[in-house]
Amino acid sequence: MTKKKRHRPFTVDDYVEGVLSRDRVMVARTITLIESNAKKHRELAELVLKKLLPHTGNSIRIGITGVPGAGKSTLIEAFGSMLCDDGHQVAVLAIDPSSTVTGGSILGDKTRMEKLARNPKAFVRPSPSGGTLGGVTRKTRETMLICEAAGFDVIIIETVGTGQNEVTVRSMVDFFLVIALTGAGDELQGMKKGVMELADSIFINKADGDNKQRALQARAEYNRILYFLQSPTEGWKPKAFTCSAMTGDNIRGIWDVILKFEEVTKDSGVFERRRKEQLLEWVDWMIEDELKRRFFENEAVKKQLPHIRSNVLHAELSPAAAVKKIMEIYDNQK
Amino acid sequence: MTKKKRHRPFTVDDYVEGVLSRDRVMVARTITLIESNAKKHRELAELVLKKLLPHTGNSIRIGITGVPGAGKSTLIEAFGSMLCDDGHQVAVLAIDPSSTVTGGSILGDKTRMEKLARNPKAFVRPSPSGGTLGGVTRKTRETMLICEAAGFDVIIIETVGTGQNEVTVRSMVDFFLVIALTGAGDELQGMKKGVMELADSIFINKADGDNKQRALQARAEYNRILYFLQSPTEGWKPKAFTCSAMTGDNIRGIWDVILKFEEVTKDSGVFERRRKEQLLEWVDWMIEDELKRRFFENEAVKKQLPHIRSNVLHAELSPAAAVKKIMEIYDNQK
Repeated sequence: MTKKKRHRPFTVDDYVEGVLSRDRVMVARTITLIESNAKKHRELAELVLKKLLPHTGNSIRIGITGVPGAGKSTLIEAFGSMLCDDGHQVAVLAIDPSSTVTGGSILGDKTRMEKLARNPKAFVRPSPSGGTLGGVTRKTRETMLICEAAGFDVIIIETVGTGQNEVTVRSMVDFFLVIALTGAGDELQGMKKGVMELADSIFINKADGDNKQRALQARAEYNRILYFLQSPTEGWKPKAFTCSAMTGDNIRGIWDVILKFEEVTKDSGVFERRRKEQLLEWVDWMIEDELKRRFFENEAVKKQLPHIRSNVLHAELSPAAAVKKIMEIYDNQK
Repeated sequence: MTKKKRHRPFTVDDYVEGVLSRDRVMVARTITLIESNAKKHRELAELVLKKLLPHTGNSIRIGITGVPGAGKSTLIEAFGSMLCDDGHQVAVLAIDPSSTVTGGSILGDKTRMEKLARNPKAFVRPSPSGGTLGGVTRKTRETMLICEAAGFDVIIIETVGTGQNEVTVRSMVDFFLVIALTGAGDELQGMKKGVMELADSIFINKADGDNKQRALQARAEYNRILYFLQSPTEGWKPKAFTCSAMTGDNIRGIWDVILKFEEVTKDSGVFERRRKEQLLEWVDWMIEDELKRRFFENEAVKKQLPHIRSNVLHAELSPAAAVKKIMEIYDNQK
């Protein structure tokens, strides 16, 4: 398919064929289509997705998070480059919470993962999180599916440790990796509540030079904590390891852990079962999101709810009576 | 007010006056009214609640959980009896997850907290959790308000460590206590994910006799873990302690911690702010619950959703398309 000087808009088949033939420009265009909130684009995107769905699912989906400063980008670059050298096709999607506020994107910074982005076997894409959280989830999940249809067999979804984002990413990946730093005590305080419990494995980065000994101590500390936490994955016991993205030390170890995880969970059926559960959860979650959106964006609700909340705070209305009242307002409006 | 051989049904004022005068039979009857799902009772209950609301809020609300076998009942009995001796009025509400399934109630077992239940200054009530989770929350919260209006100044909400119940109870109390056992390693595995992070304090029970030394070791272990977890309450650092409900050792210590907690959080304003947030969260939460109930109990939705889910699982429909489709079905039905 040639793409220069075309005058007609892209058809569903243009997108589908472009993605399936791993035409990088068309993969990027399809993701842009997916990311659009315009009704016309949504309808087109739906048709494209429908045709691509049978070609999805053939990857290992990896979520990676860590506190700012943990060296996630450097680590993902080293890890992704190694996998490309091994013959894998690696897609990296970065969810950037900063872009919801500024419209810009710190993760989209061109200097990040520059080497990996230039690798013909890799695909690096910031996932703009503008709009609702529901929007983020849909866009990131659908982008992941596009990448799978394009033949990428390792999908990495990177996020910054803000808490809610981690839960969202955990709900769409097979394996969840937390990148930590030495001096576990202080640094862990910077990790949001509950993030460690999402981890299938913790890698302590920057275990090099003078820091090596402290990293080993941190590993022992993390292993001790992990021992007390319930694993997010049935039949898998998360452990802590050290590595150095700078020296390359034990970056291979990350992949070894993931391969072992894949083997164990595929043998037990947990892998496949989780994927199905994630799919149905996603549907339920979007339904709830849509129900809430309709309600809270209803004009009469928007107008009356603050008043009703105030009545509740001043003990003039019980919460149950408040809900009854606002529901009546909603019903009369529709 | 005399109550024998009455022939007219109770009026709103009968309930309100009965509760405000701490007439135990009328308190119990009002709670039964609150717990009823019948429309007629709900309407009456709403009117009663509205009149009682200005008399609520003057208690310390304490959530208590622990793995089965941690000795919660014995501990609550010892703790509650001590508070009654100190001159407090103590209400214990027990959320019993088993009753959702069986209709019966293990926590309602008459032999539990027998001594406390007979204490004229105490009030022990199992909170049946039959019906929806939304129902449980509403009933327990409203029962708490009734008890406050009746002048109980310490409200204890007991729950079994199932995970979701703990999050619900945490959302309605000021202070959340986790009862643990020695041999932290193995026993903690029985504690559901995330429960420890809800704790404002952990008390290791059964720290008596031969078990004392192990309890002290467990305390050190728990303190180490708590150090790594974010506190559920701003400006308060949760710690672990030992106690023995059997010997009575350090049961007073529980109350000391709670008094300190109350002082610190009232000084910082966190106490009052959290109560307001909990109230508004409750409203939002009931709205969401009602929106979901209407949707998932809609006849057309109930009929079509399984088919649509199956289409999603077989990659015949994208999740977004599935949601669009089921929403159209819902809209056409209404």
